Amino acid sequence: MNSEQSEHNGERHGWRETLRVIIFEADTPLGKTFDLILMLAIIASVFAVAFETVESVAADYGRELRIVEWVFTILFTIEYVLRLISVRKPGEYARSFFGVVDLLSFLPTYLAAFIPGAQTLLVVRALRLIRVFRILKLARFVSEGGQLLLAVKNSLPKVSVFLVAVLTTVIIVGTIMYLVEGPENGFTSIPQSVYWAIVTMSTVGYGDLAPATPLGKTLASIVMIIGYGVLAVPTGIVTAEIGRADRTKKISTKACADCSLGGHDPDAEFCKRCGARL
Amino acid sequence: MNSEQSEHNGERHGWRETLRVIIFEADTPLGKTFDLILMLAIIASVFAVAFETVESVAADYGRELRIVEWVFTILFTIEYVLRLISVRKPGEYARSFFGVVDLLSFLPTYLAAFIPGAQTLLVVRALRLIRVFRILKLARFVSEGGQLLLAVKNSLPKVSVFLVAVLTTVIIVGTIMYLVEGPENGFTSIPQSVYWAIVTMSTVGYGDLAPATPLGKTLASIVMIIGYGVLAVPTGIVTAEIGRADRTKKISTKACADCSLGGHDPDAEFCKRCGARL
Amino acid sequence: MNSEQSEHNGERHGWRETLRVIIFEADTPLGKTFDLILMLAIIASVFAVAFETVESVAADYGRELRIVEWVFTILFTIEYVLRLISVRKPGEYARSFFGVVDLLSFLPTYLAAFIPGAQTLLVVRALRLIRVFRILKLARFVSEGGQLLLAVKNSLPKVSVFLVAVLTTVIIVGTIMYLVEGPENGFTSIPQSVYWAIVTMSTVGYGDLAPATPLGKTLASIVMIIGYGVLAVPTGIVTAEIGRADRTKKISTKACADCSLGGHDPDAEFCKRCGARL
Amino acid sequence: MNSEQSEHNGERHGWRETLRVIIFEADTPLGKTFDLILMLAIIASVFAVAFETVESVAADYGRELRIVEWVFTILFTIEYVLRLISVRKPGEYARSFFGVVDLLSFLPTYLAAFIPGAQTLLVVRALRLIRVFRILKLARFVSEGGQLLLAVKNSLPKVSVFLVAVLTTVIIVGTIMYLVEGPENGFTSIPQSVYWAIVTMSTVGYGDLAPATPLGKTLASIVMIIGYGVLAVPTGIVTAEIGRADRTKKISTKACADCSLGGHDPDAEFCKRCGARL
Repeated sequence: MNSEQSEHNGERHGWRETLRVIIFEADTPLGKTFDLILMLAIIASVFAVAFETVESVAADYGRELRIVEWVFTILFTIEYVLRLISVRKPGEYARSFFGVVDLLSFLPTYLAAFIPGAQTLLVVRALRLIRVFRILKLARFVSEGGQLLLAVKNSLPKVSVFLVAVLTTVIIVGTIMYLVEGPENGFTSIPQSVYWAIVTMSTVGYGDLAPATPLGKTLASIVMIIGYGVLAVPTGIVTAEIGRADRTKKISTKACADCSLGGHDPDAEFCKRCGARL
Repeated sequence: MNSEQSEHNGERHGWRETLRVIIFEADTPLGKTFDLILMLAIIASVFAVAFETVESVAADYGRELRIVEWVFTILFTIEYVLRLISVRKPGEYARSFFGVVDLLSFLPTYLAAFIPGAQTLLVVRALRLIRVFRILKLARFVSEGGQLLLAVKNSLPKVSVFLVAVLTTVIIVGTIMYLVEGPENGFTSIPQSVYWAIVTMSTVGYGDLAPATPLGKTLASIVMIIGYGVLAVPTGIVTAEIGRADRTKKISTKACADCSLGGHDPDAEFCKRCGARL
Repeated sequence: MNSEQSEHNGERHGWRETLRVIIFEADTPLGKTFDLILMLAIIASVFAVAFETVESVAADYGRELRIVEWVFTILFTIEYVLRLISVRKPGEYARSFFGVVDLLSFLPTYLAAFIPGAQTLLVVRALRLIRVFRILKLARFVSEGGQLLLAVKNSLPKVSVFLVAVLTTVIIVGTIMYLVEGPENGFTSIPQSVYWAIVTMSTVGYGDLAPATPLGKTLASIVMIIGYGVLAVPTGIVTAEIGRADRTKKISTKACADCSLGGHDPDAEFCKRCGARL
Repeated sequence: MNSEQSEHNGERHGWRETLRVIIFEADTPLGKTFDLILMLAIIASVFAVAFETVESVAADYGRELRIVEWVFTILFTIEYVLRLISVRKPGEYARSFFGVVDLLSFLPTYLAAFIPGAQTLLVVRALRLIRVFRILKLARFVSEGGQLLLAVKNSLPKVSVFLVAVLTTVIIVGTIMYLVEGPENGFTSIPQSVYWAIVTMSTVGYGDLAPATPLGKTLASIVMIIGYGVLAVPTGIVTAEIGRADRTKKISTKACADCSLGGHDPDAEFCKRCGARL
């Protein structure tokens, strides 16, 4: 779906191609409009599914919500059929992640007519929200989102090394706490204690599990103070990456022909050292 | 209210203009004094309203607090009238955000004489605290506050991309947790579960809702460890911006004599646009 | 007590001066030893006072702890007297912060003989722990501690601007939550609600107060997501300062005599551009 | 076990040496395979030990888990014996940290035949997870892990200065809170209050202990707001270090032909030590 390919096929000018550009691309005004309307429909349908689970809302507006559900189901069914018709390789789309999510976003409503309870599967619709990132492809967010993604991607090797260290730590800490606190204080098993260690080191601290013995509290204190410093590591990694992305973005690749000095500003037209035209 | 305009009108020299400068500007000694006294009055009135809601304080000092309330109400009424008189466009001020807040900061006390309970609206006074940022316009905080604001402003596009990602994540995570934990463990609805996801990913972790099933705890652990890394992203963005603001501050103050371009590197000897010696 | 002054007086060579150097300075071997022993005594005495408040420990080792207390009391009394004798201006020392803390670290034990319960004042001893920072004056921590302190100090103006913004936010948020949740959900007064807002925005999240109404939970969610981004600001400020301190530390102040290029490495002996000896 | 030594001994070519290279080194294909299999066995055995402590799992799969335990015990025994045979200095290995951990990872199963309950010591196996960092020695993680470790190591002096400050603060804060809140609100002793201060300043906030008096809540609010800024310091330190490691990576690879000094700036044209053209 890169731009060169779409230019090539742009000559076909069939209604299918026009439909495909509207539905799958976000470069044309119609494509943008379609994406925005789809996004709003997805958000509205997610809200409808979400609020149907709230008992008081379901009691008062149950009928209205069921109508809304059927409207969205029919809309998404039409959208799915149009996608299948317009796309160049329908089989590939149907088997792709988004193809399956699109199918599952309306299928449960039909199934619920035969199988009671199948409706709860509608929550899969929430996964359609991932499409929101397509909107990020629009104009002004491209460079910001791209930079962020690049920084996060570059951070991954370092962050994964860090996660291995954290996982090893929480298992060891959890095991020690299981021995120290024991089942009588809520640390009923090692997995439970590891869960406590994760809740503590991530500074979430629900308080559903908390050390009760003096030794346990001392150990927990050490874990918290260490967790404090540990929290700094991923932040440092990501910050350094974003800072680097910032810096590299802003330097011109042009070098002076006279003195061959590089590292000019992107808007420089003359060498800052010798004054020669770049 | 920019400096050029105020210079122009400075010739009017009427008592209204003098009043306006005192009340609305913070550049003259009298203006600074007025701003400081107003700030202290706002803080004191907010404290009075706040502590009146504390039952034990209201029982012991109820009468004193009511006197204080009337004193501030009368003071703020006078201030509001003076603002209306001195400002150049009273209608515009009255409809502006601060105009409405100023009005609402004393009106409820009068209304309470007729409508019981109207007094609780006095908490609107807290909004007057936003005026504290006017004090930041004073001398030494100008550059610090300005830099911070600029850094936060520059971070907004990236941070908003990030917030979209976080919101999508908490909805999907909340939906999954609703299916896994179910109403019997407190996850009574999808909005409730999304609330839990936000409480967890922001590492607040009240503990009013916590996973009870092994699968729920495993999922929660994954969410927390991811949330750990996720916390790093906004920090990285803001830090990079502040760092950049710091660096750009060190830009040369020299401007080109020929084309008057500024913002040269500190080590530049020739203008980067026209090549003239700096 | 700066070095020039102590050099001057170094000629006195009296036993008082020797004592003063040992007790108040940390540059001589004896001074270092004294500081270390004092530090250990303070830590031990703090532990003794702290553990005396633990009921089970007090029941089992009450007598031993009382002996330890008297030993430390006598030691600290002797130390105080020696400080008074050796210092150049005893009155000034006695009225200084550390002078008062030193006095209060042993006085309560004597007072307890006449006034029952005066002993609890011994916890003032914990304040003597601040002396631990004197040890930081020793050798290898000087530059690290100095850099950190400088970075924190440079961050103060920006961080205080930020704190004003946070305080204004928590008061406004707390006031709104008081109106939304009300006393029936634990938000009994505005100060109580402001306390909740601080607990939430700092991501501590005890859970002693948590929103119960749907609207309250929605507002709390917004506060948490904002708090998430807000947490990034002080980190960004301090990080930028530490990074700046790092950078400025490492550049030589020497400039090339031939081409006057600055910004050389501290170990550079020749100009990196023209090769002239620096 | 440095590379020079292993080259030397590479001439021995005995089966013992081959075994040693497989078991202790990770450079050969066989060595890598051994390390990976061992890692998986350790993870599996840790999971087995962990899930045996879960009551419901133990009730259903108790027999299977006991078989798995014996299989791993025998495997780890064989591994231990092979390590003892192949290593050059068996005594040194047996007394080393990993030697003791390796021994304790199977010994308790045998002991449990004679001493009931000795089996709980099997949790020591979790410590074997530390071996996971050996895998980090493999190919692509070397530089990432090395950089992270270097950054963390370089941060240690500054972070330890910071930790001394935090520890002093939590002791003083804890002591004050003990006096303010007292045993009737759960602050039963000073160590307990210090534990609360650590839980609060690290933003974990279990909620098992929370201030109940207005003064206590005010103090706690101040501690939280300070803790907010304090959290920024270790992050700033680590970030600055990682950023520095990043920057120094960009140093020129050119070395001076005359004095062979490396580490020049990328834009250096002359050696900064001897002035020779690079």
